[in-house]
Amino acid sequence: MTVELVNTGSELLFGKILNTHQQWLCRRLTDLGHAVLRQVAVPDTGESIEQAVREALARADLVITTGGLGPTCDDLTRERIASLLGRRLFPDASVAENIARYFAGRRLTVPARTVVETMVPEGAEVLPNHFGTAPGLAMQVSPNPFRPAGAGSWLVMLPGPPRELRPMFEQILLPRLKSWFPQSEGFVCRTLKTTGIGESSMEEKIGEPLQPLVDAGMELGFCARVGEVDVRFVGRGPGAEAQVAQAEAITRGLVGANIFGAEDDVLESVIVREFQSRGLRLALAESCTGGHIANRITNIPGASAVLLAGYVTYANASKIRELGVSPVTLEKQGAVSEETVREMALGARRVSGADYAIAVTGIAGPSGGSEEKPVGLVYIGVAGPKEVTVLRKVNAFDRETFKYLTAQQAMMLLWRAVVAPE
Amino acid sequence: MTVELVNTGSELLFGKILNTHQQWLCRRLTDLGHAVLRQVAVPDTGESIEQAVREALARADLVITTGGLGPTCDDLTRERIASLLGRRLFPDASVAENIARYFAGRRLTVPARTVVETMVPEGAEVLPNHFGTAPGLAMQVSPNPFRPAGAGSWLVMLPGPPRELRPMFEQILLPRLKSWFPQSEGFVCRTLKTTGIGESSMEEKIGEPLQPLVDAGMELGFCARVGEVDVRFVGRGPGAEAQVAQAEAITRGLVGANIFGAEDDVLESVIVREFQSRGLRLALAESCTGGHIANRITNIPGASAVLLAGYVTYANASKIRELGVSPVTLEKQGAVSEETVREMALGARRVSGADYAIAVTGIAGPSGGSEEKPVGLVYIGVAGPKEVTVLRKVNAFDRETFKYLTAQQAMMLLWRAVVAPE
Repeated sequence: MTVELVNTGSELLFGKILNTHQQWLCRRLTDLGHAVLRQVAVPDTGESIEQAVREALARADLVITTGGLGPTCDDLTRERIASLLGRRLFPDASVAENIARYFAGRRLTVPARTVVETMVPEGAEVLPNHFGTAPGLAMQVSPNPFRPAGAGSWLVMLPGPPRELRPMFEQILLPRLKSWFPQSEGFVCRTLKTTGIGESSMEEKIGEPLQPLVDAGMELGFCARVGEVDVRFVGRGPGAEAQVAQAEAITRGLVGANIFGAEDDVLESVIVREFQSRGLRLALAESCTGGHIANRITNIPGASAVLLAGYVTYANASKIRELGVSPVTLEKQGAVSEETVREMALGARRVSGADYAIAVTGIAGPSGGSEEKPVGLVYIGVAGPKEVTVLRKVNAFDRETFKYLTAQQAMMLLWRAVVAPE
Repeated sequence: MTVELVNTGSELLFGKILNTHQQWLCRRLTDLGHAVLRQVAVPDTGESIEQAVREALARADLVITTGGLGPTCDDLTRERIASLLGRRLFPDASVAENIARYFAGRRLTVPARTVVETMVPEGAEVLPNHFGTAPGLAMQVSPNPFRPAGAGSWLVMLPGPPRELRPMFEQILLPRLKSWFPQSEGFVCRTLKTTGIGESSMEEKIGEPLQPLVDAGMELGFCARVGEVDVRFVGRGPGAEAQVAQAEAITRGLVGANIFGAEDDVLESVIVREFQSRGLRLALAESCTGGHIANRITNIPGASAVLLAGYVTYANASKIRELGVSPVTLEKQGAVSEETVREMALGARRVSGADYAIAVTGIAGPSGGSEEKPVGLVYIGVAGPKEVTVLRKVNAFDRETFKYLTAQQAMMLLWRAVVAPE
């Protein structure tokens, strides 16, 4: 089953907004075992939309459009697709009701322009919008006049706002996809999240042991990000479940210490979850990461029960005052040193009363480096009930990548100290 | 002049990575006065790449591809485009030299596979890569066999990594674009960055006064983001400069208090710049934003000279210990209250010795709200040499949007206190 995406919206071609639909939809469709073969973005002109949809229908079993279903004059998707397929538009009472309910709930009168949102092409099914006014629309194009063999396709129009599109995909479209395109065979997709090991080392360690499973048809994939490598197994057919489970077991046996989670886990969510379930408390002392770790930890709901205190101690005076770092250490070893990070971690743990504390001190750049202590040098310390562990790294990247990667290393060090002490 | 983009990379269609090239290139091209009419993403298969490039060449004056120029087996762009256009590939000595220099600088031997990166299609110009090994390539396709009228097109191939693509575009491609496609008429694009005012209020205030300029041909655009609205003027022709300057003057006269910068300014960069130039120091006391403001401030080079200390004081004990907030205030008024934020701001300023301090306390959600103090309620305080200003807001959004928007409001409050006291 092949899929093509058509993202409509002039703001995409002006570069005013980032197209997050592409990644989100591609990922969800891939997870479901479907192959997205092309994605196109076109401006809000009737002609561009028609051309892109016509071309996509000529190739794909499923065409999904996003955007252009709203009430303003540049919302043309519904109308142009109906005209392309020679279908008339009829008002739909269920949509009108949903719109009336939406505005009544906000004590507003229904704007006259929303009437276009109630129009549904002949033969199309309404995909109700629980988070907005414009419904999605789904229609079977069969026979498909644009496809050489005349094979039929499905055409789905989704609204542009991510807050409306995503729940509509999950709750309304997904069950329909499963019935339109039943996966006759089993399909299992499993992603393990790892950190602290590069993509090529990972491949070196697990490639050969997994080769028999790959030879038997299982897909093995790697995806490297800053400070993380995803390992992905895709199995198809009746034995898929067992195949993928075996691959996971082999991988855990070989690089288990690097695996911190699965699927959509991120280090900060794993840490908040582990701390919550163990009743532990955390403190953070950040110099060069400047609040980046605190920000990521507090993005996770429930962080307030875990994070006792965070200190952004850029200035030496602040390291001394807030964390009790010794002025002698700062003078003799410097702010970026193993001894300073050790005192920062111990100080943050002691002052806050936390069970564990992370401390970070380094040179984010672009300036401030020296021969002996280059830009990118960073010391990371984790103080726990038993000991302090210190890591020295040189993360020679731009400022934001430096902060991100250092945070990954720090959170992994903490995670290992708490969950998987070696 | 019309442009189409072809982004190659199977990882894009798997949804493994976000396509940031689209927005970045579209924005830069739009700023230069060019119209991007279509963007396509295709997997790393020779056929998909050829088809997408052929279709784009049939329509556009300039086709830009990204990705697929590296040394691995799925890097097919160079080869397939050469074959599509019937051009032979020749090794280029300047590229080989650059590659040798690249690896020598890293004390590594040159991998054999990089030899494919030295191959250049007949008639193509090498765009040197100062940040990697694969060069960009530019070629004139004239006559263009795919275009109905036979009009010529330009075809440019850029490498996939953003760190290589962006400087290559700015430093190498941009001057060439200006000579290939000279803007015969003047072209001026100016964006004013505003905050603290909604898109529709903005349009209400400046729309009518700017109407005469719009009638005279100037484009007026708005782009709303979380806590920000961009106002954009585009002028063309000999009077463009004067037209846009007049529009800016009118706008500053009407909503000047909301304008914090222009073009790519963000609130944190404007604040670091202002503090640096005035020799001022900052402290941050964040409860519900959990380090988000500190993280954004410290993303800006030079922040270390400005930010004295940041406190992430989630717990009441931490507010008392680090900032000297009175336990009685916390008991009687609650942690989320005007009096608490005032004491946090004053405490952060006093303890750190900073000239200004921001304090934030609120309920980020998703839980923790009450009838009286709903999720999204936040108090923001700015303490300066003369006074403390407190803002009360209800930012009822998801957790990350809440943090982002609250940070915008807090930084704007600080910016006004320092730069534009009313």
